[in-house]
Amino acid sequence: MSNDSSARIVAGLREWIAQAPPGARVPSNRALMAQYGASPVTVQKAVHALSALGLVESRPGVGTFVRATRTVRPPDYTWQTAALRPPRARLPTLATPLRDSTPDVIGLHAGYPDRELVPARLVRAALGRAARGDAALVKSPTAGLPELRAWFATELAEATPSGVTPPAPRDVVVLPGSQSGLSSIFRSLVGSGRPLLVESPGYWGAILAAAQAGVRVVPVPSGAGGPDPDELARAFEETGARVFYAQPNYANPTGAQWSPRLVEQVLDVVRAHGAFLVEDDWAHDFGIDTAARPVAPLDDAGHVVYLRSLTKSVSPAVRVAAVVARGPARDRILADRGAESMYVSGLLQAAALEVVTQPGWRTHLRDLRRALRARRDLLVDSLAEHVPDAHLDHVPPGGLNLWARLPDGTDTDRLARDCEAEGVLVVSGVEWFPAEPSGSFIRLNYAGPAPDRFPDAARLIGRALNRWTDR
Amino acid sequence: MSNDSSARIVAGLREWIAQAPPGARVPSNRALMAQYGASPVTVQKAVHALSALGLVESRPGVGTFVRATRTVRPPDYTWQTAALRPPRARLPTLATPLRDSTPDVIGLHAGYPDRELVPARLVRAALGRAARGDAALVKSPTAGLPELRAWFATELAEATPSGVTPPAPRDVVVLPGSQSGLSSIFRSLVGSGRPLLVESPGYWGAILAAAQAGVRVVPVPSGAGGPDPDELARAFEETGARVFYAQPNYANPTGAQWSPRLVEQVLDVVRAHGAFLVEDDWAHDFGIDTAARPVAPLDDAGHVVYLRSLTKSVSPAVRVAAVVARGPARDRILADRGAESMYVSGLLQAAALEVVTQPGWRTHLRDLRRALRARRDLLVDSLAEHVPDAHLDHVPPGGLNLWARLPDGTDTDRLARDCEAEGVLVVSGVEWFPAEPSGSFIRLNYAGPAPDRFPDAARLIGRALNRWTDR
Repeated sequence: MSNDSSARIVAGLREWIAQAPPGARVPSNRALMAQYGASPVTVQKAVHALSALGLVESRPGVGTFVRATRTVRPPDYTWQTAALRPPRARLPTLATPLRDSTPDVIGLHAGYPDRELVPARLVRAALGRAARGDAALVKSPTAGLPELRAWFATELAEATPSGVTPPAPRDVVVLPGSQSGLSSIFRSLVGSGRPLLVESPGYWGAILAAAQAGVRVVPVPSGAGGPDPDELARAFEETGARVFYAQPNYANPTGAQWSPRLVEQVLDVVRAHGAFLVEDDWAHDFGIDTAARPVAPLDDAGHVVYLRSLTKSVSPAVRVAAVVARGPARDRILADRGAESMYVSGLLQAAALEVVTQPGWRTHLRDLRRALRARRDLLVDSLAEHVPDAHLDHVPPGGLNLWARLPDGTDTDRLARDCEAEGVLVVSGVEWFPAEPSGSFIRLNYAGPAPDRFPDAARLIGRALNRWTDR
Repeated sequence: MSNDSSARIVAGLREWIAQAPPGARVPSNRALMAQYGASPVTVQKAVHALSALGLVESRPGVGTFVRATRTVRPPDYTWQTAALRPPRARLPTLATPLRDSTPDVIGLHAGYPDRELVPARLVRAALGRAARGDAALVKSPTAGLPELRAWFATELAEATPSGVTPPAPRDVVVLPGSQSGLSSIFRSLVGSGRPLLVESPGYWGAILAAAQAGVRVVPVPSGAGGPDPDELARAFEETGARVFYAQPNYANPTGAQWSPRLVEQVLDVVRAHGAFLVEDDWAHDFGIDTAARPVAPLDDAGHVVYLRSLTKSVSPAVRVAAVVARGPARDRILADRGAESMYVSGLLQAAALEVVTQPGWRTHLRDLRRALRARRDLLVDSLAEHVPDAHLDHVPPGGLNLWARLPDGTDTDRLARDCEAEGVLVVSGVEWFPAEPSGSFIRLNYAGPAPDRFPDAARLIGRALNRWTDR
């Protein structure tokens, strides 16, 4: 209640301030109490909020005043150009999948599931409980909370066949999101200037982390069936690379899930080249027609470095992931994490563990699968009806994305801008290719808000595409 | 209540499991309910916890069993040695200040304040409120929540003299802790292989981040009065460095606070060399005899890159900090943050903002100042009484640490180990020197648990030191 009234006072005063001269005196708290019928605490809260926004300043014992806008001379930062020198890699400031959506557009661009797909009740309860516990006040060990590390290890251990040694909790390093894991892994296991094999098309976040780490990205062709093991072997031989980054389950963007035979082939190639497979199991909780089948449990010789995130399935605000690695590789990754961020908030770790160990978590995953299936099928059908020129290599058995091929020569960057002008956000496939794109693709995410508008979205994409092909 | 009973069952069953053969059947839930007088939910929770720890496995419809320890052959990771090649820099896996303390030792080693110095009530309330709000379910923009960015900008703006343009919210990038900021700043503004000027002694976390970024650390002598501006100018000239990292307020470890005259001198040197001052205002909230006087508000030409953390003063679990930078430097840092971690948990950001905008925050800071003064003075007095050979250059006017010089030739690494054997954790000064130490120092943190044991701690340090000098 008090929250709402305070927001009402803030809104009212902002209007008033917009028209007031700098230095004008804001009505006294007593006057505001009378005007809004609010308590002293509520009024004070509103004034504090305005002060935090830099709109007013309080002089104790005198009153509150509209902050004077200082005369600003245009700043000159040209000296920085010399001091900074050219960057090693030009990193984009904001990738399209991270853009925020507004209610007036249909967002098929995002990488994060809409709040309707998040187990809100479980998350709020877990965060509330963590807020009352020890985890709210103390720091976590660098490698993570022991109980959470054990949970990640157990999840893999339960999928480990007999005869293979399952990972132990000490092999787990907790991360503030899997992007941080990619950065650490590429810095630790590859290193600046050295080659890294990456599926092409492959996850844009990994291509970005590779650029940041200064590693040399070598594309390995991949598609709806996963990467070609012969090309993979050739790439290892030609480049001397020791690391292959891939998403064996519901790859972003293709949606590919590796067959058991391909898993064996890739592991054979990786073993034969004394190399690492960095397995990014980003969509572990997003199986639709199948369940995710991680590769990591098949290896106990330290070849697979496994990345598992809870951020997308628990909540985008609970930024918790883990890397599972063995041997010196694990030590090197842990040391990099210590240098990069010392430790991950124990509060988020405690909340994440609480969510995934509740009976309600299983129920949520079942509901999620149903919801994703409905969304995927609706978007596939809508595309078939309204964008007949878009070709899907397959209906992905899991994940959050469709990867649609458009007629050759379509400028998908331009098409994405045209679509935005029409009111629908899509991502040009260019961002998923480490080198030149092998065709014209767009990626469509079916986990965003308002799935009932998918048919409208498809209609708008179709219209934009027609205009383009007519040109 | 249910929490406690569940913990009781877990403890009981762990004892039982320790003696049970692998594969043994755990008593049924019904039997456990009777044995412990607990509800089905409580029993189920306990069994889940044991399962998450990997101690038991449940076979639905059959029962719960003690997990069979699999036969483990010794793993062979030697192939990784070739694949990994030597690291660019050997990073320590665990720095001493990050070590966890146990109740049986007196911890003067830690870098984080004890929970008794954290505003527990405010933190729990803020986290609880954030858990109920939007911030619990959605992702944050890469640069941070607008309101929190405005708060950081306003804090600096309020200290900005007239005639200088204050920073704007867009100059602020929110970070998951200031260590991440150091990594990003050194990668973005210095770059691998290039020189970075660092106070010596200087903050070990910065030396670590510099090693991770592969930058070449150049020590600039510093002490209780701060760095020598002539040496600073010489270092810029000799190395061609463009970045100087320093802590102008209550430097870790020396406790130095720069005089207004030194601030002007350093700014002049930095400007003359077209360089950046990276100001790490880590102890902004830890003034004791004085208040922190940030350098950043004196500069509007983009020379000062300002780092401000809330982690230590709000709560170690609320890992939130910010970097304030202008011009291309800000763009480059933001791009690095996007590549490194995409965004910071909005829940932690919302909670941090809530804490620092409450009226109780000011009260807390006043109480904190009093508590730190009492702790500092007690430790200073205890040292004077029991370790007469320890010399303090000054009583630091703020911060969390004493920097004590010991007789020349004292092997402080060995002394730290001897102290640990006596039951008190101190840190050898070696970790604060980018090159050879200029003397024998130990750092003593007075923000840890149980300040009433400071006299005991000093007695133990004195005893260990006597044994050492007698050798």
